[in-house]
Amino acid sequence: MKATTERLDTVDVARLQSVLDGRWASIRNEVRGLVRSSPWLRSGSGLSTDAYRARVAEQARALSQTKGARLFFPKSSGGEGDIGGALTAFEMIALVDLSLLVKIGVQWGLFGGVIQNLGTPKHHERYLRHAMTMDLPGCFAMTETGHGSDVQSVRTTATYDPQRHQFVVHTPDDDARKDYIGNVAKDGRMAAVFAQLITMGKSRGVHVLLVPIRDEKGRPCPGVRIEDCGEKEGLNGVDNGRLWFDEVRVPRDALLDRYGTVAPDGTYSSPIENETKRFFTMLGTLIAGRISVSGAALSATKLAQTIAVRYGLGRRQFHAPGSDQEVILLDYLQHQRRLLPALATTYALHFAQESVVATLYELSSQTAGAERERRTLEALAAALKVATTWHATNTIQTCREACGGAGYLSVNQLPQLKADTDVFTTFEGDNTVLLQLVARGLLTNYREEFESLDTPSLVRFIADQAIGTVIERTAARPFADWIADTVPGSDKDTNLLDRKYHGRLFAWREKHAVETVARRLRKGMAQAGDAFAAFNAAQDHVLLAARAHIDRVVLERFVAAIDRCDDPDTKALLNKVCDLYVLSTLERDRAYFLEHGQLSAARAKAVILNVNRLCSELRPHARLLVDAFGIPEELITAPIA
Amino acid sequence: MKATTERLDTVDVARLQSVLDGRWASIRNEVRGLVRSSPWLRSGSGLSTDAYRARVAEQARALSQTKGARLFFPKSSGGEGDIGGALTAFEMIALVDLSLLVKIGVQWGLFGGVIQNLGTPKHHERYLRHAMTMDLPGCFAMTETGHGSDVQSVRTTATYDPQRHQFVVHTPDDDARKDYIGNVAKDGRMAAVFAQLITMGKSRGVHVLLVPIRDEKGRPCPGVRIEDCGEKEGLNGVDNGRLWFDEVRVPRDALLDRYGTVAPDGTYSSPIENETKRFFTMLGTLIAGRISVSGAALSATKLAQTIAVRYGLGRRQFHAPGSDQEVILLDYLQHQRRLLPALATTYALHFAQESVVATLYELSSQTAGAERERRTLEALAAALKVATTWHATNTIQTCREACGGAGYLSVNQLPQLKADTDVFTTFEGDNTVLLQLVARGLLTNYREEFESLDTPSLVRFIADQAIGTVIERTAARPFADWIADTVPGSDKDTNLLDRKYHGRLFAWREKHAVETVARRLRKGMAQAGDAFAAFNAAQDHVLLAARAHIDRVVLERFVAAIDRCDDPDTKALLNKVCDLYVLSTLERDRAYFLEHGQLSAARAKAVILNVNRLCSELRPHARLLVDAFGIPEELITAPIA
Repeated sequence: MKATTERLDTVDVARLQSVLDGRWASIRNEVRGLVRSSPWLRSGSGLSTDAYRARVAEQARALSQTKGARLFFPKSSGGEGDIGGALTAFEMIALVDLSLLVKIGVQWGLFGGVIQNLGTPKHHERYLRHAMTMDLPGCFAMTETGHGSDVQSVRTTATYDPQRHQFVVHTPDDDARKDYIGNVAKDGRMAAVFAQLITMGKSRGVHVLLVPIRDEKGRPCPGVRIEDCGEKEGLNGVDNGRLWFDEVRVPRDALLDRYGTVAPDGTYSSPIENETKRFFTMLGTLIAGRISVSGAALSATKLAQTIAVRYGLGRRQFHAPGSDQEVILLDYLQHQRRLLPALATTYALHFAQESVVATLYELSSQTAGAERERRTLEALAAALKVATTWHATNTIQTCREACGGAGYLSVNQLPQLKADTDVFTTFEGDNTVLLQLVARGLLTNYREEFESLDTPSLVRFIADQAIGTVIERTAARPFADWIADTVPGSDKDTNLLDRKYHGRLFAWREKHAVETVARRLRKGMAQAGDAFAAFNAAQDHVLLAARAHIDRVVLERFVAAIDRCDDPDTKALLNKVCDLYVLSTLERDRAYFLEHGQLSAARAKAVILNVNRLCSELRPHARLLVDAFGIPEELITAPIA
Repeated sequence: MKATTERLDTVDVARLQSVLDGRWASIRNEVRGLVRSSPWLRSGSGLSTDAYRARVAEQARALSQTKGARLFFPKSSGGEGDIGGALTAFEMIALVDLSLLVKIGVQWGLFGGVIQNLGTPKHHERYLRHAMTMDLPGCFAMTETGHGSDVQSVRTTATYDPQRHQFVVHTPDDDARKDYIGNVAKDGRMAAVFAQLITMGKSRGVHVLLVPIRDEKGRPCPGVRIEDCGEKEGLNGVDNGRLWFDEVRVPRDALLDRYGTVAPDGTYSSPIENETKRFFTMLGTLIAGRISVSGAALSATKLAQTIAVRYGLGRRQFHAPGSDQEVILLDYLQHQRRLLPALATTYALHFAQESVVATLYELSSQTAGAERERRTLEALAAALKVATTWHATNTIQTCREACGGAGYLSVNQLPQLKADTDVFTTFEGDNTVLLQLVARGLLTNYREEFESLDTPSLVRFIADQAIGTVIERTAARPFADWIADTVPGSDKDTNLLDRKYHGRLFAWREKHAVETVARRLRKGMAQAGDAFAAFNAAQDHVLLAARAHIDRVVLERFVAAIDRCDDPDTKALLNKVCDLYVLSTLERDRAYFLEHGQLSAARAKAVILNVNRLCSELRPHARLLVDAFGIPEELITAPIA
């Protein structure tokens, strides 16, 4: 380790930043340039809600004329069709203001995205360009008051009237009103409405229709009732609202009919027979939203960490014995422990996020096929959304506390970052529900390979809670081989910093947790005979398996990124950051490894001491590690930073 | 267990509430009555900062005419001198609005408290009545921008001028300005200023002086500069501000001189020789502030849990396989796991808090002596402040997430509770610094008994970071006996729900952690020869020892409260709540017990399964458990509750 430690002193911030900037570095730099040259591109934090909303709307309209908007949209609509670049630009815009990010995310990503993915050429031609330029401000009306996580059960109806060739969109009661919908309270003119499609007396499941909600003068359309959701904890620059439809009629071609269409006479047809599969296919195409939440969570975390690390390096408190100088906060072990493992985790998640963006970009260039890869990506995006958003919530809170009373002042940015990001663990899929989706993918694999999980209804229950998906396997090998191989080496022979050992340990835990879940489900079914009771009794283990999977995948992506790095000094530093990521994860979860004989007591204690050691070794590089995020100074407005 | 489980169904909410209401139940009921009959006693959340401040000031003035104010002040000043009742009333007022709680806490508790505790009869006669009635709005100017945790190093000076018999109060630079001071920005007229007292050319350490900051018309006094701290994350009903003094002159008797006085000629005298001891004695008398923060943290947590549990019982999501009804959120194991162990912890902390309040009340009736008991109480109050405020931060966050998007809307109260309580982990002593204080008490005991910790400078270093204190010992037995006794029984013979076993396990961990810290410090000194390096290398263990101590003490207080309960049904329910508190604590920290051979792997897994089982057994009583907090319905305004 000595050799690499010495090497770290020569790491250059620009080189490290270029590794972090990655494939879409040029986009990152364009947005940095735009931010620097655009004083209007600053947070509206502190404004009254009305003024904040107006400012964000104006910023969003201005951005709609820039490359950022064009990246997201296809060339056929005047865009540039670069989803990787678009998501990278979103990540950078998130540093400006998270309300702004959500506002454009709703407009381009959700409203534009649903038209792009679930519509057909007639919709694309009519609406995409206007969605891009924001001439048609749109909403994504999926969630209802009564159904958020369980979208398949929304109760808004769209009933086809073959006489007049129209759909009648209707809200049966308050529980079925659309709720928390961005862009509804003030700006939206058209909503993409998720509703149960009924034709010829038969329900065909959830479909999406474009429904005008305001006229050109901004007045609500007939039959449409709009309510403001009012003050929220954060994101008050976004005008969230509620929608009720009282038998609102829209023409037949308002239906986004890529995966299901209704003929003039009311006949329903779809390229996907199975209703649930159709539903999950439709939802699956909206993956970009979930990925951009991960990116935004990471951006907010990076900004908070930049502030907290700079403060921790400048602030002194308490004299050391026999010294006339007070101690720098970040020289305290505990302060290092609060900030540095989380910083290492941000690095790990950053590279995992980049790999997801890259994969989505690759797949978007293929017009068809690659179904398995798409399902795999959906699971990975869900897993990463869970990891990044809880990481953001925990880390920004810790950063606030690490800045003491100063961290509590709005001027120091942390309160806004906390408040804005808090809902990330809830929207675009509640994290607990997403964990179940990930676990379901793992179990499906397990069942496919072993045919031993004789509880299909259970797996279906878990599946029903989330979009269908398949979990990728390490190196695309059959699951059985992978399981056979992932036995960590003997405790004593292996260096605690051996990366292969790390990988085997993480993979072993994932495998063992999946096996245990399967066993517990089987046993539960045999005992209770009740699928829900069996599932519920094992739910803690279901979530554990999913979390173990996430940790393993994130580690793999981090290691792959380090392998790609060709500068030896930068590589040495990243390896140390990776060591801290792995060992702090092991430290947190060491009880599981101890309980299953994969860590001895002595080795578990060594893990703790190694975290301490790595913290002190990375302490001199803390400033470099946050500077390499490349956040424009214009956006680090906190006086304490 | 069967017998007690059946019994639980007959527990009555009123009986459980009366156990929780405890010794000052009548005060609790008086405040409940006041709240019900006073529509003006509602949260100002949602108002603009100016309007919010005005409303809180008005509420505080009105409360100053009620018994709540009188309880805190001595009979000699027209009060009722019941500190236990006063702190209980504070807890209840915290349910109304935390800004209001802080506003009256600053006025009565800190400003009134410092005059009461550090002043002499001349100050009491002149100011206490006006502090109580709020005719003299006061501030507590301790923290400076540069020194928050390390109050002993504040840099404001008060230099005695024997010619004019005055003190000259001065702020040498911006780092020494008073910062975050409540009541400064708008309402305060007099500040209790912490400053280095200098007389006859010699510094005598930190003392407190009463300095007028505004005249009767509200204009800043000459030489006093006032600045508004501006928007904060929460508590925006409190007007926090900054103060600079430019050679402001105050008369000699402005010095609160109970522990240090200056004769007209400038001669300094004090009943306490040692400057550090004097400083900590002065700070120690201000213990009520710290205890009231714990109470407020618990009140906010109870309100959040009431909202989340009610929502979890009303909300349904996802159909169970083969059922046409959707599942109630709180029927999911994971939802129980998120809410119920935290609820059990609130119960545990509630009883610990009550015991601290009762002890302070007992000690307050003694005019002198009981020094050891006072030091013990200080340590306990610090420990409990750490436990309650981090519990509040974590739990209110979880409650927000457990309420999904609805929890993000301001109307549902959780955002305000989150924002207001966030600073509790920082003010009245940063939690990390307080943990060190607790650990220092443990180490001092250890050294006193064993004379084996030959690193006095280290202990002093830890001591310097906080007020001096002594940790109580179990049943007042010598530490050595206690250590000898606390060896948990053999793993296999003992029932996992045996309360004596719980006590031994918690006590063993505390003892072992303290021993390890002592050993590490000794070893560190021997190796490094540098007290700071030795301390710093062991800091993680220092904090661990303190946390282990807190868990042990809280458990003891919970068990003592259950022992006092004479209704067998209520007692059975509380025992089950206590089981969940203990086992979820063991689950969280089971790695430590595994590493030290105090839990076998099989037993550690059994802990997890027992947490699941206890969650499902307490699930039917969730509503009862929150209803027994007795929060007035008028204050549960969240529509989702």
